[in-house]
Amino acid sequence: MELLEQKILTEGKVLSESVLKVDSFLNHQIDPRLMKQIGEAFAHRFSDAGVTKVLTLESSGIAPAQMTGLSLGVPAIFARKRKSLTLNDGLYSAEVHSFTKNVTNEISVSKEYLSSEDTILILDDFLANGQAAKGLINLVQQSGATLAGVGIIIEKGFQDGGKQLREQGVRVESLATIASLNHHTVTFSKEGASV
Amino acid sequence: MELLEQKILTEGKVLSESVLKVDSFLNHQIDPRLMKQIGEAFAHRFSDAGVTKVLTLESSGIAPAQMTGLSLGVPAIFARKRKSLTLNDGLYSAEVHSFTKNVTNEISVSKEYLSSEDTILILDDFLANGQAAKGLINLVQQSGATLAGVGIIIEKGFQDGGKQLREQGVRVESLATIASLNHHTVTFSKEGASV
Repeated sequence: MELLEQKILTEGKVLSESVLKVDSFLNHQIDPRLMKQIGEAFAHRFSDAGVTKVLTLESSGIAPAQMTGLSLGVPAIFARKRKSLTLNDGLYSAEVHSFTKNVTNEISVSKEYLSSEDTILILDDFLANGQAAKGLINLVQQSGATLAGVGIIIEKGFQDGGKQLREQGVRVESLATIASLNHHTVTFSKEGASV
Repeated sequence: MELLEQKILTEGKVLSESVLKVDSFLNHQIDPRLMKQIGEAFAHRFSDAGVTKVLTLESSGIAPAQMTGLSLGVPAIFARKRKSLTLNDGLYSAEVHSFTKNVTNEISVSKEYLSSEDTILILDDFLANGQAAKGLINLVQQSGATLAGVGIIIEKGFQDGGKQLREQGVRVESLATIASLNHHTVTFSKEGASV
């Protein structure tokens, strides 16, 4: 998605060979028009998948999930992150380890909003080692719902989460795929260059 | 806002005389079309205020802030919640006590995204005792930005946050105002009934 790649090039901050900060339009400040285009892009890519709900993880996934749900005409759900197990009644939950922050969160979603009748599109802002996506897939599996696939805004193609998911047969669609962050420079791979 | 009040009446769960749960369309699952209408309603109410940015608090404020920013053509920012003070460099931060959860969070926003040139519309899902709104106002004051006002989706008119803010001269616009949750029944006050 070209507008997204331009934003990453002009506003993204390469903090290391593995960390890209996009706080100015995605993770802290949001560019609403870009989010609208991102939502339309995901809706277009998964238009054939019979999606009944969009599932994401708080907080950065919420704006794109809202716009994708709006485009597809289906509800969006954001899984909650918690530090520790509290009341677990009525929740599907899974553990997600963040290597960036070195913390394990429990993520959960109410059983009321995921059912075996649903076809779920999972959305997330970044895909690196795939921990968050795997946790969300775990929630979908617990509910018995069908997984339409995983939509990712920025995939770090040099980490192996995307490869692992695709090898498991999961449909992964990334709007921008980064081949490398070496030398403080963002290099996109071809997959990311196409709309 | 009539559609919002209908949603509250049909899907809201009155858990006590002070707690209303709206997880099916606002706080966990999101109704994207309702969020669009909420964004348009806030944009309409504050169309004369010269808003340059919308500021909310993660997570439930993000979808309505996205839609309001889209309608107004300005960026949205979500303040982050943290349990404890960590790195504070480059952040405006304030403490917010949640009486519902009996926990004090630090909320913060990067100094990069709020400046004295800005005119800020604060948005939040609920207004009860006003702790979150006051914390967000504190962040705006630290930045030297102008406060356009506070937009609230559901105001608990029987708690005094709204009264306190209005007495301080803050413009507060609530899309639905609840007079009472007694007898497991939602009763709206007149302010909430008008669009």
